[in-house]
Amino acid sequence: MSEFVRQIPDGDTRERLVCATCGHIDYRNPKIVVGAVVSQGGNVLLCRRAIEPRRGFWTLPAGYLELGETAEEGARREAMEEACADIVLDGLLAVYSISRIGQVQLIFRARFADADAPRFAAGEESLEVRLFEWDSIPRADLAFPSVAWSLTAWREGMGRPLAAPAGNPPADPLGAMAFGASPGAGGL
Amino acid sequence: MSEFVRQIPDGDTRERLVCATCGHIDYRNPKIVVGAVVSQGGNVLLCRRAIEPRRGFWTLPAGYLELGETAEEGARREAMEEACADIVLDGLLAVYSISRIGQVQLIFRARFADADAPRFAAGEESLEVRLFEWDSIPRADLAFPSVAWSLTAWREGMGRPLAAPAGNPPADPLGAMAFGASPGAGGL
Repeated sequence: MSEFVRQIPDGDTRERLVCATCGHIDYRNPKIVVGAVVSQGGNVLLCRRAIEPRRGFWTLPAGYLELGETAEEGARREAMEEACADIVLDGLLAVYSISRIGQVQLIFRARFADADAPRFAAGEESLEVRLFEWDSIPRADLAFPSVAWSLTAWREGMGRPLAAPAGNPPADPLGAMAFGASPGAGGL
Repeated sequence: MSEFVRQIPDGDTRERLVCATCGHIDYRNPKIVVGAVVSQGGNVLLCRRAIEPRRGFWTLPAGYLELGETAEEGARREAMEEACADIVLDGLLAVYSISRIGQVQLIFRARFADADAPRFAAGEESLEVRLFEWDSIPRADLAFPSVAWSLTAWREGMGRPLAAPAGNPPADPLGAMAFGASPGAGGL
């Protein structure tokens, strides 16, 4: 096994994990999450998570961007994987930084490719997928604060052309708060 | 040394590098670049790169987002590191996917914190930092296509409130083209 030590590489300003044998630097970078608020006739698509963390709670179709994808391709892939939904992106709805867990989330506004006959079903990582009327959204059972933030941003821009994307709410500008502490469903 | 083999982990759909000894999965993810078009009185701030790739060519103050930072914090840090400039972000100007090299770039619109007396200087990774009038921008010597794209997006929105951020140009929707092949300075 190679052994990694913490040190500041030449020309850098931060400690990195550096292999004591070969000098390879193991950069750890924030990850990009891509997802979508998919709506149809004023209802929004949510997926009940089949996997941890937050199994059993409701989320947007979203996940890690893969190498070789654009953000838009990733958001469409996630909708297909998690909700078996073929979606068309309208544009970027929100950009959230969740510094606590090293994520930047790019959330798109989207609709079903076939708006007249929306098709969706639970993918492998979902227990259940449903279209919710706004008042029926399971506010207390949303998986993550940014799900609530995204739904709020969607609702505020509903029926209008996309404007500047929403960012973190003023109460959690860094995305530093954990589930219970962050202003999530409370603001929805 | 541990040995990594290419295989599709359980529950995954893609090949990953998996350690043959301990089963550790070495996920490779796209990286987030954060940067800014910093302007003052219609002039824009560019940095001449002191490092490879594209040493000697002009770029925006921009770089990899670090763990624990928000996108906004990262963009401000890069302006300080590369241009010794204290900047204030107006909002998100553009989001580019450069799938060829596994990057998503978040480019902000920004101004100097002290607009009346803008201060800037070459940081360690810059040979030179200058404010350019639009017509004086060294179009043929820009470091990357997305620098040209960002400047074009900035120019188009100049003097107006930020709207939906720009994305990749229609000629390179995936960010798949290399330097010479991509529509860069040509469109500027």
